[in-house]
Amino acid sequence: MIKIGIIGGGRIGKVHGESISKYVPNAEVKAIADPIMTDEIRAWAKSMGIKDIYTNYRHILEDQEIEAVLICSSTHTHSQISIEAAQAGKHIFCEKPIDHDLERIYKVLNEVERAGVKFQIGFNRRFDHNFKALKEARESGKIGVPHIIRITSRDPEPPPVEYVKVSGGIFLDMTIHDFDMVRYLSGSEVEEVYAVGNVLVDPALEEAGDIDTAIVTLKLENGCLAVIDNSRRAAYGYDQRAEVFGSKGAVAVTNDRNSTAVISTSEGVTTEKPLYFFLERYMGSFSEEIKQFIDAILMDTEVPVTGVDGLKPVLIGLAAKKSLEEGRPVKISEIDNR
Amino acid sequence: MIKIGIIGGGRIGKVHGESISKYVPNAEVKAIADPIMTDEIRAWAKSMGIKDIYTNYRHILEDQEIEAVLICSSTHTHSQISIEAAQAGKHIFCEKPIDHDLERIYKVLNEVERAGVKFQIGFNRRFDHNFKALKEARESGKIGVPHIIRITSRDPEPPPVEYVKVSGGIFLDMTIHDFDMVRYLSGSEVEEVYAVGNVLVDPALEEAGDIDTAIVTLKLENGCLAVIDNSRRAAYGYDQRAEVFGSKGAVAVTNDRNSTAVISTSEGVTTEKPLYFFLERYMGSFSEEIKQFIDAILMDTEVPVTGVDGLKPVLIGLAAKKSLEEGRPVKISEIDNR
Amino acid sequence: MIKIGIIGGGRIGKVHGESISKYVPNAEVKAIADPIMTDEIRAWAKSMGIKDIYTNYRHILEDQEIEAVLICSSTHTHSQISIEAAQAGKHIFCEKPIDHDLERIYKVLNEVERAGVKFQIGFNRRFDHNFKALKEARESGKIGVPHIIRITSRDPEPPPVEYVKVSGGIFLDMTIHDFDMVRYLSGSEVEEVYAVGNVLVDPALEEAGDIDTAIVTLKLENGCLAVIDNSRRAAYGYDQRAEVFGSKGAVAVTNDRNSTAVISTSEGVTTEKPLYFFLERYMGSFSEEIKQFIDAILMDTEVPVTGVDGLKPVLIGLAAKKSLEEGRPVKISEIDNR
Amino acid sequence: MIKIGIIGGGRIGKVHGESISKYVPNAEVKAIADPIMTDEIRAWAKSMGIKDIYTNYRHILEDQEIEAVLICSSTHTHSQISIEAAQAGKHIFCEKPIDHDLERIYKVLNEVERAGVKFQIGFNRRFDHNFKALKEARESGKIGVPHIIRITSRDPEPPPVEYVKVSGGIFLDMTIHDFDMVRYLSGSEVEEVYAVGNVLVDPALEEAGDIDTAIVTLKLENGCLAVIDNSRRAAYGYDQRAEVFGSKGAVAVTNDRNSTAVISTSEGVTTEKPLYFFLERYMGSFSEEIKQFIDAILMDTEVPVTGVDGLKPVLIGLAAKKSLEEGRPVKISEIDNR
Repeated sequence: MIKIGIIGGGRIGKVHGESISKYVPNAEVKAIADPIMTDEIRAWAKSMGIKDIYTNYRHILEDQEIEAVLICSSTHTHSQISIEAAQAGKHIFCEKPIDHDLERIYKVLNEVERAGVKFQIGFNRRFDHNFKALKEARESGKIGVPHIIRITSRDPEPPPVEYVKVSGGIFLDMTIHDFDMVRYLSGSEVEEVYAVGNVLVDPALEEAGDIDTAIVTLKLENGCLAVIDNSRRAAYGYDQRAEVFGSKGAVAVTNDRNSTAVISTSEGVTTEKPLYFFLERYMGSFSEEIKQFIDAILMDTEVPVTGVDGLKPVLIGLAAKKSLEEGRPVKISEIDNR
Repeated sequence: MIKIGIIGGGRIGKVHGESISKYVPNAEVKAIADPIMTDEIRAWAKSMGIKDIYTNYRHILEDQEIEAVLICSSTHTHSQISIEAAQAGKHIFCEKPIDHDLERIYKVLNEVERAGVKFQIGFNRRFDHNFKALKEARESGKIGVPHIIRITSRDPEPPPVEYVKVSGGIFLDMTIHDFDMVRYLSGSEVEEVYAVGNVLVDPALEEAGDIDTAIVTLKLENGCLAVIDNSRRAAYGYDQRAEVFGSKGAVAVTNDRNSTAVISTSEGVTTEKPLYFFLERYMGSFSEEIKQFIDAILMDTEVPVTGVDGLKPVLIGLAAKKSLEEGRPVKISEIDNR
Repeated sequence: MIKIGIIGGGRIGKVHGESISKYVPNAEVKAIADPIMTDEIRAWAKSMGIKDIYTNYRHILEDQEIEAVLICSSTHTHSQISIEAAQAGKHIFCEKPIDHDLERIYKVLNEVERAGVKFQIGFNRRFDHNFKALKEARESGKIGVPHIIRITSRDPEPPPVEYVKVSGGIFLDMTIHDFDMVRYLSGSEVEEVYAVGNVLVDPALEEAGDIDTAIVTLKLENGCLAVIDNSRRAAYGYDQRAEVFGSKGAVAVTNDRNSTAVISTSEGVTTEKPLYFFLERYMGSFSEEIKQFIDAILMDTEVPVTGVDGLKPVLIGLAAKKSLEEGRPVKISEIDNR
Repeated sequence: MIKIGIIGGGRIGKVHGESISKYVPNAEVKAIADPIMTDEIRAWAKSMGIKDIYTNYRHILEDQEIEAVLICSSTHTHSQISIEAAQAGKHIFCEKPIDHDLERIYKVLNEVERAGVKFQIGFNRRFDHNFKALKEARESGKIGVPHIIRITSRDPEPPPVEYVKVSGGIFLDMTIHDFDMVRYLSGSEVEEVYAVGNVLVDPALEEAGDIDTAIVTLKLENGCLAVIDNSRRAAYGYDQRAEVFGSKGAVAVTNDRNSTAVISTSEGVTTEKPLYFFLERYMGSFSEEIKQFIDAILMDTEVPVTGVDGLKPVLIGLAAKKSLEEGRPVKISEIDNR
């Protein structure tokens, strides 16, 4: 029975806590820490049977019984806590992104390697039934060598401007999942990025120095081309589709819905809208990623999403940002030439 | 915290045990009984933290801490155990059917009423996301008054002949779910039944006195007509579809699949087969029915599937059987004129 | 160049005339006859370059240049004109049904055989792209031996009561197409019929002695079971679906639409309604049946829909009528024991 | 009755000839010209009742009875013949593109304007049922202001290398239809283009100086972003899809198929592949564009696809070409600053 500490009592921290309780029989959450320990978190922790409740995450790192931590705190704290956790010998599951700063990411990767602990990044979509089916179809050879990858990724509504201001911008906050997906689906690395974008949804984003509508084109090492389109607001809900087109065919996935019901009336033929947002849509993937993280610890195998998998999408995101600013394609090697 | 005893350690008993552990926070399984207590059941019970393990279900009925029982034993024991459980003052969740014999069903209903305990029947499909969407569409008035109900219900493979021999025949074993669904979707009662059937899948069923392919037509009290088609073997998997056609339109549901993936090659455009069988397909409904059973106990409200809901499909099933034997439409009033 | 005479200047007569002009290069319409020759028919005939315009169809039968006639007049005249046309040595394309009276149908079949002329019945749906795909899938062996055939056939709105009164009832007027389809899709003959029905759409039909909602179950010689559901009014339009379920799988077709457009908004995800009615929906099949009729004449081969194909659905329709009246399954041999 | 001359007896010339004969009652083809007048063209012309057959198109221009010409000859002759036809006072339907050279296009537009003749460009996809449904949905306001346009346009197989060498490259030969579609669907003009591409399908294209796989991103004047992905070979057939995503929702169209048949077996659930290539897929649009051209002449209204509509996609195509060569986004104003 592996004992776990959760650092960060927000939405995603709780999702992981509940996943462990329901679906991971060989792990239990022993402690939770949050600098602002509300009654609500406290009540939740109690209902989950979590023994230790802290405001300072270092108590978790000091607990010798705890073998692994889930870092679910604010993005700007991920790298610092990761480093300390590695130094404390804890296995680490870290929400994406590791950091927006390359130096700090590399420092984390170094510390993790030195400590020899597991370090898994929370790119949960890799564990989603639809995206797994895409990858399996590509790996089966059924569609041949990939030529074009298309990802549509649209949120149902934009985040608050206050959040946007500290989010690192759409490419590091939202598209980063799609950058990871391009790597996952193609089995190749991105070489060059070109981004166009606009503020079409919420004028407030302009003041925050961000955009809400974007198309990003990527050239991959294996010759495959990829394109991602993003919007911060799809009126019909959370739109998560992808297609891999290859030399022998194509495989595509579309949105999940609450039911298969089709209603036909004099007005038209109507189906349900996509599941509303990421918690509903990707629930299964959140428990699967944690399960595989625990399995990797128990069986001492490689984690399914590595530190390098955490680094690469940040590089692509930084390139996309520079591309948008400078109005030209940007090579990954311009961002990082290590 | 309501303490539960499970009677019958087979597949469905375990499904309910796991549902309670994962999804029903205010209930726990205290005991399990099975006349043939295998190591496998024992190990499962232990892993679930079930304290008491019996071969004789009466130990469960005698346990004063246990408030409710789930009757998941062989069909022919349902009525006897239900009666004893009611007399012991336990709330009862009973798998379908209550019995194949009308007298015994009525005896159960009487005992349950006398004892004043909750008595819920395991027609789980009512709790399925697709069938709920059908019913909600009908109740919303969007499709008007129902005129025609169509149900397609096909298993992926026939059960063993030994099972078939004691199953009561296809109408009481398999179609019974569809008979319940007709009542659930129409909001009306069946008046007359006509059944045709054949042995087309497995010749062994003929010797067992059963059929494997059937079409059943039903006349309902509200004028609506319904038709069910059944097969014991759909080569492509478990086929569970339904449609309600009404004065203002229609609502239809189709099968669930493991992913939305569509693969296009020179061979054609292919999607996944339906989820294989009832455990995969209806998993969500199994936990929902138990949750609502526990809620009904806790809040002392009516159970969502009553004893009468358990009786009626048996009446329809017996009428279908008689119709097939006699080659003519049979009225429900011929089966039961109480 | 085969010269054609059209008898009956209504909707379907014009459809055939236009098909010949556009799609059948080796045929031309020389004459048209209608007892009530309106200006509108006259204008249409002129625009089509049809030379001879008559009120009496016998002028067409007397025209030695005319090799073939299309009988598109009122149903009750089909048999009489067919007999005269056969005696005049004309090849005959006759709209369905030949007649409602068995004696007269047999008389037509005899005269046609004696005269040695081609005699094709207008069961156009056999030539539809969707239904052809169904049949081809069954014949390919992909779905194995047929076990269950399901047909949904619903009109967008009921015909005028005046029409209903002379229509022979829903089974001979509307379901007759579906009876033909069961034979076409199964490759077998119907043995027994059971029909239930109700007046749910238009109370006026009750006075006319007809029904508007029906379910018909059929037993076939090869053991296959079939079910047809009909309604005279589907609020969402013309609903024409079918499925053949067999030992190795199933093939199903659904409705055609004007475009593949899917509109997703905050209200839901909407596609177009089915094509409105039979002229739009089956346009392609009308020209194909005439083309094949002309080909059969030119190459002296058997017509694709024979006189017997015209007889059998009438027998099934009469059995369905009797079944509804008597509330019991009716064997085809009760209707016709020749 | 408008008399027409067809210049160019290839595939598309014949398609237009047959459309006129079947669907355009107020026009007839009087003459056809082709520099290489084969027996095959001659036979076709005869079967269509075309009186005059020439090798030199100038005979058509000299025929005073002929009011309109369809220019269906090789691309490099379009501008020269258009100019001469305008000078001869003929209305002109010209296949796309007018020319690859801007000077010559402007010369054509000037001559046409001076002559006051109708001049319609053969962007047939605007007349397709699916693309019309897209545009109508956008114009209806249902999806709000367009934010993102996505077009997938993939051929079933690459053209012969000999053709590719004189085709002007993929952007002027194939993508040009998609550039027109972006303008048609957005109701706006393109400002800037960025193209990436690769040779992944046929290495011979590399020697021909062309690519076979491309993604083109476009910035539009109204702030909308657009992306087109192209491949010269989709193993599953001709792939023609598009989506307009806007402030209130999205509308998408997918491929047409020969039937709606779905075959379910133990192997999976399979539908038909898309219609194979443009003649099958866009047949309806070819007749509609000619019909509207004739209507514009008869009613003296503006043609639905103007000379400027012919010019703009060429500008975008030249910008895409330059973008690919120079590896940077290219503004339309760099190509043409008139």
